[in-house]
Amino acid sequence: MHNIEDIQDIINKNIENLNFKLTPVELYEPISYIFSFGGKRIRPVLTLLACDLFDGQVEDALNPAIALEMFHNFTLIHDDIMDKAPMRRGKKTVYKKWNTDIAILSGDALFAKAYEVAIKTNEKYLKNVLKVLTKAAIDVCEGQQYDMNYETDKNITLPDYIEMIRLKTAALIGACLKTGAIIGNADDNEVAKMYNFGENLGLAFQLKDDLLDLFGKEEVFGKKTGGDVITNKKTYLYVKSFELATGNEKKILSNYFSGNEFDEEEKIKTVKSIYNNLNVIEITENEIDKFFKQSIKCLDEINLPSFRKSELKKLANQLLRRES
Amino acid sequence: MHNIEDIQDIINKNIENLNFKLTPVELYEPISYIFSFGGKRIRPVLTLLACDLFDGQVEDALNPAIALEMFHNFTLIHDDIMDKAPMRRGKKTVYKKWNTDIAILSGDALFAKAYEVAIKTNEKYLKNVLKVLTKAAIDVCEGQQYDMNYETDKNITLPDYIEMIRLKTAALIGACLKTGAIIGNADDNEVAKMYNFGENLGLAFQLKDDLLDLFGKEEVFGKKTGGDVITNKKTYLYVKSFELATGNEKKILSNYFSGNEFDEEEKIKTVKSIYNNLNVIEITENEIDKFFKQSIKCLDEINLPSFRKSELKKLANQLLRRES
Repeated sequence: MHNIEDIQDIINKNIENLNFKLTPVELYEPISYIFSFGGKRIRPVLTLLACDLFDGQVEDALNPAIALEMFHNFTLIHDDIMDKAPMRRGKKTVYKKWNTDIAILSGDALFAKAYEVAIKTNEKYLKNVLKVLTKAAIDVCEGQQYDMNYETDKNITLPDYIEMIRLKTAALIGACLKTGAIIGNADDNEVAKMYNFGENLGLAFQLKDDLLDLFGKEEVFGKKTGGDVITNKKTYLYVKSFELATGNEKKILSNYFSGNEFDEEEKIKTVKSIYNNLNVIEITENEIDKFFKQSIKCLDEINLPSFRKSELKKLANQLLRRES
Repeated sequence: MHNIEDIQDIINKNIENLNFKLTPVELYEPISYIFSFGGKRIRPVLTLLACDLFDGQVEDALNPAIALEMFHNFTLIHDDIMDKAPMRRGKKTVYKKWNTDIAILSGDALFAKAYEVAIKTNEKYLKNVLKVLTKAAIDVCEGQQYDMNYETDKNITLPDYIEMIRLKTAALIGACLKTGAIIGNADDNEVAKMYNFGENLGLAFQLKDDLLDLFGKEEVFGKKTGGDVITNKKTYLYVKSFELATGNEKKILSNYFSGNEFDEEEKIKTVKSIYNNLNVIEITENEIDKFFKQSIKCLDEINLPSFRKSELKKLANQLLRRES
């Protein structure tokens, strides 16, 4: 059995060995650049831990795991264009450092390169692995579209919001765990449970992200807090607050998220104080806890000794205790 | 044995059956829209004809063929953003009809959907088919990057140019024919020859495109001629002319393709007259003929009775006699 640190080492070494020193450099430099941001490589680590849970060959899970991480990084490059996000992990985003055309095309190349790695998967698992990756890719696109729609849609309900993050974030986390389970030769029921484990973990993870975007510590978070408020992102905090708010608070929220220009500092300060008044931090933390417990329940239902699940549980806990 | 029209019917029916009436509509409408442009569906037709050449099961080639056509349409959506092309086949391009974000994301979704169809390929051929598709996808991205670079690079040689269109256009035509051959159970040597047949055909096809962009009939071509001249695309015509031009003509060409603003009509008229003076139409036609003959030579080297090759030869001829 492998622990998280072993697995992270394996992943990091494999990512270092990905060779993007190719021509044309304008296409591949942005890909090297986005990988240079580092990060915890949560997705491929989850894939390898899931495979290891079922005592599978971790080496067989490596290519699909790296492909999933490559796919994830492709989505970051394109999402940053659409979200007009200038910074990521304290560095300029690809479209800001270069330009939109370069970001579109290097993203496309990385998407194709992800498949190049994925198709190296042991043929025994190839078709299933590719199905999972491709389904997740489609889900993520759909989720991103809903996310964009919600920037201007006025009446987003909580179920709308949860469905959006399920597609945009949770589906890929589910896919990572499902892929690991497939390569661990888990049975269909176990594979489905691992997907649900990941999906619920992904939902909790995204709500935590919503919370950190506004209430995280800037020096740990790597970018200015309040980005979602400035760009009128309809986060869980917003949708819940808008549901709870009445009278003047509802008017202020509605006005602030209408798309007009406001003084950024003042907007963040006011929105924060409304969220505080409505007790939305606690409500969000409870919701995170609910999805987290649901995720652990799925993992618990898998008929394996508890000690085998310790690393996955540890990582799941880390993801929700994080401050960045 | 199937003829071109049979094969076109099969492809068209299958494309009609692709269901993009999905949600979110903002994501899928642009995909339905680009498929509604119609066209000759050259790429999937080539795949099926190649399979049929080797007496393969055309039904087995259908999913990969459709996937290749989907991939091609994805590249059109993204290329039109980068090329700032307002029109395609007499209709607004996706990014013009909607916006850049929608065009990026619906393109991404179509890329993923292409793989969704590709992975339905008979498992016997799956890995090889996906390798060919993915290699072509990477080649096309690299080619598009060189194409963008060449808009501002001053010293493009003819070999640079040919390598760019080999990646951007010819590699996918090669991939279509290779895929058909794989599913027709052709041997490795035959598969390689089919790729070379396609690659040379693709080079001839692109040069023909360069010619039509400036000298095609607008009513047949579906867009204004001279688009490449206006956007400073370094086509074969330009690169060859720049090589041949001396004195004042060279200065005019250099100035006109410098990126500054000019009166469009006058720019097109002057550039056309320089190309005419330098006899570049005839030179390009000879080059097209050279690549075409090279492509037919590859096909001829395949040890099959000549009558089996008639439909592929007929289609290849049509592609180079076209006026749009």
